[in-house]
Amino acid sequence: MKLTILGSSSALPTSERYPTAHVLEVHERLFLIDCGEGTQMQIRKNRIRLGKINHIFISHLHGDHVFGLYGLLSTFSLMGRNTPVNLYAPIGYDTILRSHLNDFDIHLDYEIRFTPLSGKDPVKILDNKFITVQSFPLKHRVSSFGFLFREKPGERNMIKDRISEYKIPVARIPAIKKGENFVLENGTIIKNEEITTAPPAPLSYAYCSDTGYFSRLSEFVKGVDLLYHEATFDSSLEKLAAKTGHSTTLDAARTARDAGAKALIIGHFSSRYKNISFLVEEARSIFPVTVPAIDGSSYVVGKILQP
Amino acid sequence: MKLTILGSSSALPTSERYPTAHVLEVHERLFLIDCGEGTQMQIRKNRIRLGKINHIFISHLHGDHVFGLYGLLSTFSLMGRNTPVNLYAPIGYDTILRSHLNDFDIHLDYEIRFTPLSGKDPVKILDNKFITVQSFPLKHRVSSFGFLFREKPGERNMIKDRISEYKIPVARIPAIKKGENFVLENGTIIKNEEITTAPPAPLSYAYCSDTGYFSRLSEFVKGVDLLYHEATFDSSLEKLAAKTGHSTTLDAARTARDAGAKALIIGHFSSRYKNISFLVEEARSIFPVTVPAIDGSSYVVGKILQP
Repeated sequence: MKLTILGSSSALPTSERYPTAHVLEVHERLFLIDCGEGTQMQIRKNRIRLGKINHIFISHLHGDHVFGLYGLLSTFSLMGRNTPVNLYAPIGYDTILRSHLNDFDIHLDYEIRFTPLSGKDPVKILDNKFITVQSFPLKHRVSSFGFLFREKPGERNMIKDRISEYKIPVARIPAIKKGENFVLENGTIIKNEEITTAPPAPLSYAYCSDTGYFSRLSEFVKGVDLLYHEATFDSSLEKLAAKTGHSTTLDAARTARDAGAKALIIGHFSSRYKNISFLVEEARSIFPVTVPAIDGSSYVVGKILQP
Repeated sequence: MKLTILGSSSALPTSERYPTAHVLEVHERLFLIDCGEGTQMQIRKNRIRLGKINHIFISHLHGDHVFGLYGLLSTFSLMGRNTPVNLYAPIGYDTILRSHLNDFDIHLDYEIRFTPLSGKDPVKILDNKFITVQSFPLKHRVSSFGFLFREKPGERNMIKDRISEYKIPVARIPAIKKGENFVLENGTIIKNEEITTAPPAPLSYAYCSDTGYFSRLSEFVKGVDLLYHEATFDSSLEKLAAKTGHSTTLDAARTARDAGAKALIIGHFSSRYKNISFLVEEARSIFPVTVPAIDGSSYVVGKILQP
């Protein structure tokens, strides 16, 4: 699981920071999370393969999280795409999207499969062989959602020496990898743990987009390996954060701590901060394993974080 | 008059080329011409002052010329703008724009003064102390317009020695700068040319956005100092150009030649061209003073072109 930050600014981009977009890579599949203006250019700059993006998650309908989508969808079409795009976005956005594409004479040669987001509780919105994705509600000026990506446990690994030792037939291996024991001809049961090793622990990534602080959020992202949480403001601007439906560095860190997250990335920085190191220091006072989101940087989930 | 290229790609941006946007500076006033995705980031990267943009010209309603506008208008508002923005775009776009801003909860704190573009003939759409701007129709898949920016002639310059020689009162100078003669007390007429020098010749810039070739276009931009003309394709793709409503290098060069333009910038290059020098060579075979549009480059109108 690898996360690449394409944009880390809040509503006002700077020359260093583009509006929000993340790409999560899981087993060579790419998940695009939010799509601020310039996302397709950042994708090209970071040599990410456009054609491998099949799922796009939009947290809420504010322009700095969406305005790159029209260009990206149009580019998919111009590149000859014909496989569906799965789009997860707040309820009603499919109508807005279709109307705006029509206004611009954009005819897509592929299907958009839309999943509307709504409600007050976590909902499983994707479940395939490799991964599940849950949406959960945030607390913003408009309806806003976070996303929790969980790898599924992999199969157990055969210990090669045991295969020859116990003369395990090839046909039995798939079942053993799934956890079954092996029974010798004489009826002796060889326990699964004796002939296999455990797969790597499945990893998880949670994306907390624009939100004010609320204590239940840490339950939604309990025990996550890597937590991204917006931190638009420093702690002195707590009131402004509350008024605008955003978080301070300390809010983000508190949620990471209460969730028992393994690591925290903060981002969505207000353009007022030229140097963001003090924002990171503030967050670290509550949650030490914090790094800042930096455009173009990648983070391997489960590895020690290095900004 | 200085032109800065913010984007020179056609519909598919590359890592080197953003979608179309130009900034024309005339007497410290900035005119934004088209506004492809990422324009506001390119403006920041090129240290252009956002607050000095009061006029925005949109040639046609294709995304690669417009999708940067929502973010830019929103940014103006977030920066506290309260002076009007004059927007010139194809008829009907004001409705589309307002509806889309509403969908995204964007409330602008300034007025948008909309001028609709339509019709089959050139129309004067702006006329102030310094400049006139004409729109003229192009030939594309959707209604598309070009823009001709003409400086107004400056005032004549007084020759200082003559002021003392003929004892010209300060109060008479404004009229003389406008071209009046000066009459001595004895009735002798001193001709204006004897006491003033001509101002620099007023300059002009024409922007020919997405268009197929048509001979009347060269009349619309007759004698222009600097002509920008799209050249999406090389000359071997003449049929594709005709089919998609675009121009080849040779089409652009022919229009420049027939218009008697002083210099030509070609751009809007298809993403198929990694190296564009042969496109420039093709155009130069018909119109020698041709340079390519390069993102981030500036060109002083009236000066010898250096790419």
